[in-house]
Amino acid sequence: MERLRIVFSGSGGQGVITAAIILGEAAVLHNGLNAVQSQSYGPEARGGATRADIIISDSTIYFPKANQPNLLVCLTQESYVKYNPAIRPGGMLLTDSRYVTVQKKVDARQWELPMYETIMDKIKNPIVLNICMLGAVVALTEVVEPESVLKVLADRIPPAFLDINNQAFELGMDLMKA
Amino acid sequence: MERLRIVFSGSGGQGVITAAIILGEAAVLHNGLNAVQSQSYGPEARGGATRADIIISDSTIYFPKANQPNLLVCLTQESYVKYNPAIRPGGMLLTDSRYVTVQKKVDARQWELPMYETIMDKIKNPIVLNICMLGAVVALTEVVEPESVLKVLADRIPPAFLDINNQAFELGMDLMKA
Repeated sequence: MERLRIVFSGSGGQGVITAAIILGEAAVLHNGLNAVQSQSYGPEARGGATRADIIISDSTIYFPKANQPNLLVCLTQESYVKYNPAIRPGGMLLTDSRYVTVQKKVDARQWELPMYETIMDKIKNPIVLNICMLGAVVALTEVVEPESVLKVLADRIPPAFLDINNQAFELGMDLMKA
Repeated sequence: MERLRIVFSGSGGQGVITAAIILGEAAVLHNGLNAVQSQSYGPEARGGATRADIIISDSTIYFPKANQPNLLVCLTQESYVKYNPAIRPGGMLLTDSRYVTVQKKVDARQWELPMYETIMDKIKNPIVLNICMLGAVVALTEVVEPESVLKVLADRIPPAFLDINNQAFELGMDLMKA
């Protein structure tokens, strides 16, 4: 397995850190992989762009920052502008089509998915946008089994919110496959 | 300001990652510091010991793992046995007196606080043990203002649970000061 470096970016409150933690747990607890997850806060965090890094591998990971990510996800224009220059040549870029207008071509395969619109249309609750994004990422990368994420959700999400999280995850998978 | 390297350790579900994220946000958003927060998952995570690292500094942080932490917090015996040899000589060790029996002396100042017992006695809900621990850490290190943590809690915690989180934080501060 190639080492996969992923960056989830957006604004505070969009749940990108939570999504990264869930993906790391799914990889380790249910797929037998190693994962390192981190966030750096600094002057730029105060500006509003939040970033969560995750590296997944079947071997030991020594350095936890995902410099030159294979996959960059952007849920806001600001995070797109800030982080897209760092994407690895030939890598993957996933953006939300409501929040991000892709301004110039980078050397990456690009997916613009209506994640926010779909969530608001079907679930009417923006809180699960991060889990919809996670569904799209899992369908795109196949880095973990979808069932592994569903197990982590069942362990971590309060029962009253589990249904909408599962639904958001499936919607994200469907958007990517369509 | 000296760079502060902190490790929170315990078992899955005790909320040590959440506590580390809250501390990092408090330091950056409300105290003008820099912070890096990370978790590594690997074979040892599958064994049950969870660990979250956080480094706080007023200057740039290049390496995100808190090797030789200045402060190690242990909420389970397993995490204590595993991580206490790594503590920086002359550092600080904080343990929960219900979950951890300190077995041998390390070169560290040690605090054994009845955090779990106090939470169960006063709040009757183990879910806020991590926030009580955070209160003790803030009182011990004074790395951030208590008000900075309370602001992050107000932003992150659902309204129905905010009161018990604030209460747990104050209980942890009081335990450390007593």
